[in-house]
Amino acid sequence: MLLHFTKMHGLGNDFMMVDLISQKARMRPEQIRRLADRHFGIGFDQLLTVEAPTTPEADFRYRIYNADGTEVENCGNGARCFAVFVRDRKLTSKHLIKVETAGGPLSLHVHDDGQVTVNMGIPQLTPEAIPFLAPARATSYPLDLNGQTLQLGVLSMGNPHAVLRVNRVDTAEVERLGPLLETHPRFPNKANIGFLQVDSRTQGRLRVFERGVGETLACGTGACAAMVSGCLQGWFDSAVELQLLGGYLHLEWQGEGHPVMMTGPAKKVFEGQIYL
Amino acid sequence: MLLHFTKMHGLGNDFMMVDLISQKARMRPEQIRRLADRHFGIGFDQLLTVEAPTTPEADFRYRIYNADGTEVENCGNGARCFAVFVRDRKLTSKHLIKVETAGGPLSLHVHDDGQVTVNMGIPQLTPEAIPFLAPARATSYPLDLNGQTLQLGVLSMGNPHAVLRVNRVDTAEVERLGPLLETHPRFPNKANIGFLQVDSRTQGRLRVFERGVGETLACGTGACAAMVSGCLQGWFDSAVELQLLGGYLHLEWQGEGHPVMMTGPAKKVFEGQIYL
Repeated sequence: MLLHFTKMHGLGNDFMMVDLISQKARMRPEQIRRLADRHFGIGFDQLLTVEAPTTPEADFRYRIYNADGTEVENCGNGARCFAVFVRDRKLTSKHLIKVETAGGPLSLHVHDDGQVTVNMGIPQLTPEAIPFLAPARATSYPLDLNGQTLQLGVLSMGNPHAVLRVNRVDTAEVERLGPLLETHPRFPNKANIGFLQVDSRTQGRLRVFERGVGETLACGTGACAAMVSGCLQGWFDSAVELQLLGGYLHLEWQGEGHPVMMTGPAKKVFEGQIYL
Repeated sequence: MLLHFTKMHGLGNDFMMVDLISQKARMRPEQIRRLADRHFGIGFDQLLTVEAPTTPEADFRYRIYNADGTEVENCGNGARCFAVFVRDRKLTSKHLIKVETAGGPLSLHVHDDGQVTVNMGIPQLTPEAIPFLAPARATSYPLDLNGQTLQLGVLSMGNPHAVLRVNRVDTAEVERLGPLLETHPRFPNKANIGFLQVDSRTQGRLRVFERGVGETLACGTGACAAMVSGCLQGWFDSAVELQLLGGYLHLEWQGEGHPVMMTGPAKKVFEGQIYL
């Protein structure tokens, strides 16, 4: 069968978008792996399929699959691409789009300039919820790494994050420290590692070493974790612009118990047709 | 403007194919670089544009551009993709297709099974023609590398190649030796380095470290160089099947003064449309 798809990216995190409302298809994990290959297939970080909702409260349902074919819970970059995609495909003309995801319901707001705001959920700050091995909750934690002590902000955005403040992101030891911190024994489920440069109370730069992946161009939950940790440690105000390798994200957080609101771009690159 | 393109690959060497006969477009180098990006663009090793011929002897003309936007002379994998593309697009129904390229005229033969035979030209064996610094022409040359002596076949397939026979390609020191040999002072224009495992008189395996690129999935001229060097050194008969990382190539060579005939696959992956 001929499958129509759209290639998009959110800050360089790239997606194969498939509308499974106007067309029917089933993709097996080995098919997804083949499609994800950047030389033999279409090439993407994730596949996002848009489906009809299962409840009347939602406008759509989406699912996200990693390049290895496994389904994943959620992804801020994917959520922004989804919102632009369903409007571009004229599946909706709404600016506020409600969608079911494997990580729960999500509300997305598409602005007139095409930027999309995503409610990224409420950060979890207790060590058990992260999970992180610590005697008690703290604003930041000293962590021993082969005799060196690093001071880390640690929290969960649905997935575990550690945030290390650095003087300059462009010389940060992401390649050396990333794998060591990701697999540190105090993170039972491993962790995503953010390297944060604070430029002012409203601006910062961030590089993220993603759990199981390595450094990426843009990690939405990593940006949220850096924002929250920066607020808790008194470096940031409640609205911050973070520069990631792939571009800029705007973040807002009103403090503990509130969700992080993330705003950023999503770009359509091309449309395609492939025989499955 | 909306540009139609086809994504293809020859043994994993992947191409954006653009028919500039049915549509008009000009692509500047910075546009090609953006399109070549695998996260922000379409993603490809090379762009191949198909144009009308400038002489009545040819059916078509094609040009190949690297991902950095520079035009290159030729490419065996691209030639096979071209032949399958023009038939798939119904620009011709011929099995024997004559085409002008930056490297000169080329005849391509499309077989009924979709495999394509390319005349890859006559290998140049004299040191000056390669170029390679050596007192006299030889079947193979000892080359000093930091005190270690390696025995290399050296020849030109329009570009300089060195071929090192190894016991097993899967444990060959491609990453260490590749850059050292590529930039060895005896290659004034650098060289592509092939690591060849001889399995029988008609079968071998090959990994290629491409000049200025690094190891690739499949290098057409590298396969020809390995074939020719293996024949000259008495390891191969005149028809050989070589297994590269991306798949198989069939090579035939009747000896000095004759061209190398290379046969292999070319696969269409998908069709796409992008606004330039």
